[in-house]
Amino acid sequence: MHAVIMAGGSGTRFWPASRRKRPKQFLRITGDTPLVVETCNRLAPVARDEQMILVLGAEHMAEAGSLFHGRGVHLLGEPVGRNTAPCIGLGALYARHLGCRGPVAFMPADHYIADEHAFLNALETAGRAATDGGIVTLGIVPTRPETGYGYIRRGEVVSAAGEAPIHRVSRFVEKPDRTTALAYLESRDYDWNAGIFVAAPEVILKEIEACLPDLFAGLERLNGKLGTDAFEREMAEVYAGIEPVSFDYGVMEKTRAPLFVVPCDCGWSDVGSWESLCELRAEESDPDGNLALGETELVDCKNLFVTSQGGRLVACLGLEDCLVVDTSDALLVARRSRSQEVRKIVHALEQKRKESFL
Amino acid sequence: MHAVIMAGGSGTRFWPASRRKRPKQFLRITGDTPLVVETCNRLAPVARDEQMILVLGAEHMAEAGSLFHGRGVHLLGEPVGRNTAPCIGLGALYARHLGCRGPVAFMPADHYIADEHAFLNALETAGRAATDGGIVTLGIVPTRPETGYGYIRRGEVVSAAGEAPIHRVSRFVEKPDRTTALAYLESRDYDWNAGIFVAAPEVILKEIEACLPDLFAGLERLNGKLGTDAFEREMAEVYAGIEPVSFDYGVMEKTRAPLFVVPCDCGWSDVGSWESLCELRAEESDPDGNLALGETELVDCKNLFVTSQGGRLVACLGLEDCLVVDTSDALLVARRSRSQEVRKIVHALEQKRKESFL
Repeated sequence: MHAVIMAGGSGTRFWPASRRKRPKQFLRITGDTPLVVETCNRLAPVARDEQMILVLGAEHMAEAGSLFHGRGVHLLGEPVGRNTAPCIGLGALYARHLGCRGPVAFMPADHYIADEHAFLNALETAGRAATDGGIVTLGIVPTRPETGYGYIRRGEVVSAAGEAPIHRVSRFVEKPDRTTALAYLESRDYDWNAGIFVAAPEVILKEIEACLPDLFAGLERLNGKLGTDAFEREMAEVYAGIEPVSFDYGVMEKTRAPLFVVPCDCGWSDVGSWESLCELRAEESDPDGNLALGETELVDCKNLFVTSQGGRLVACLGLEDCLVVDTSDALLVARRSRSQEVRKIVHALEQKRKESFL
Repeated sequence: MHAVIMAGGSGTRFWPASRRKRPKQFLRITGDTPLVVETCNRLAPVARDEQMILVLGAEHMAEAGSLFHGRGVHLLGEPVGRNTAPCIGLGALYARHLGCRGPVAFMPADHYIADEHAFLNALETAGRAATDGGIVTLGIVPTRPETGYGYIRRGEVVSAAGEAPIHRVSRFVEKPDRTTALAYLESRDYDWNAGIFVAAPEVILKEIEACLPDLFAGLERLNGKLGTDAFEREMAEVYAGIEPVSFDYGVMEKTRAPLFVVPCDCGWSDVGSWESLCELRAEESDPDGNLALGETELVDCKNLFVTSQGGRLVACLGLEDCLVVDTSDALLVARRSRSQEVRKIVHALEQKRKESFL
């Protein structure tokens, strides 16, 4: 199986750890390994390094080059981010260029998966289901009435032969309100759309041709330059003219290709905020619910997430339900329940043009 | 008037800003000037630099030397801290050595005074009252039922000729409990003992001779070496044998010298904790009650005290009633109401022998 791993995007939610130059996917926040490396390593049982294509922002090529030094992972730098449809199209193009005719797994680089076995099983099932011209998404079995994700309504079962059943997709739905999300959870008919799917490159390109003809024309131009010295310049020109559009909106919701969903209960998280990281790593906490990483000293504290870098000491006294993220030049202290709003800090800094902290 | 300014003591309450090598009196916490310099500058209308004697820890001589570079202030380094009685005795000895026969004002180096005019008035009144062999303390008019200070009970008025009346001291009392402190406040008969007093050096030395003969013997040894090359070595030997004792306990509570108190309503604070500093500087706060110094960014915060040093950015989100003190190598985040307990952090670091943060 080939894999296209989408590692673009800046990610302001993990400020001050994440910055323009070092976005979330390059952070070691779930453990000792950067998320993007973790994502590739997780695929090792189903794909060789040489079958992996990492699409990332051109400005992060050097960082990725050093993270994947000596490995056969292919790195493609987008001169500017244009959302997921161009990224997926480019990945499909490149997979085909590598000779891939079978299934390709497409996925974001910055997610966490607790149960890798369940994840890989679902991926292999999806790979088998994708051999007939379909697009097969993984449907993450919901664990809470989340309003921050899109959902997939499962349709009829088309095969239950593998370890995981394969359903037709009944429909994709946008982020629901709280009541709807609760109804979805209780119905057991809906899965979270994690943006992970499997399809042959030819299918992806054909559907882009049908749904996003301008993008397809751009990809055609790139196709002629793949593997040549002119590729980078062509990328710059083509990307300058591409409209940003997501694959979900631009293709998935319009395509006439058969769509399938493989439900997957694998402890998935998109690690969307400091708070979700806290929850993810909750079992590493001390008996008072504090998770303290690096040089720290806590006195009478509860439910803190504290991380210190570079040997600086972070001392906390009498605090509850806060997060303290210390980096070499900037520090965040926030109430945990407000962690979704970290971007407000980033926006304030942008408005004040404090570039060095962005 | 001469002045002896006591600048010893390590002060763990302002950690991480205060350290063993940089105690509170050397910090610029009430404004742009270190407290010890502020204390000397405040006296300028009543004492010339050459009449000021700063007694400090020998380990801080270099720092003080640079702060008072080019000024005539006399610096005396104690090889080890032995509480206030030896420090005051040494100051008195040195003032006499400088030819002082009149009043000397003794005071700590790390206090804040809002109304300098009222303070200097009280000091001059005390100076006049001290010419007849008495010891004259300033009694700070209480503004709250504080349980952290000693009190002075005012006795009969002996003179109301000056701007401030002069009372006999009825008695000194130790730190009271809450109920007693409330009764003191309501009675209007008690003042706070701020450890500021005026007396002739000869009176101080005579009373030390009477109340603390061992200390007096040590001071006699030093007296013979004042102004000679042998002084420093003699200091080391004498101080090694001195018992630590406070002037309040060792002399004030036992002396038969006439004791007077001059009430003084001068906006005094001993700046005993981050919280008291917050209160002191409250009028510099923004409309949400936040006092933010240095490079900071606050979103939806109330009643914070935030200080950043060295250009690091401190960002806070959704916090209330906290203090955030950032220094180059250590950071404190604490609930403001717990600011008296900052020493718990210091003790924890001591036990773990984290010397570099002490």
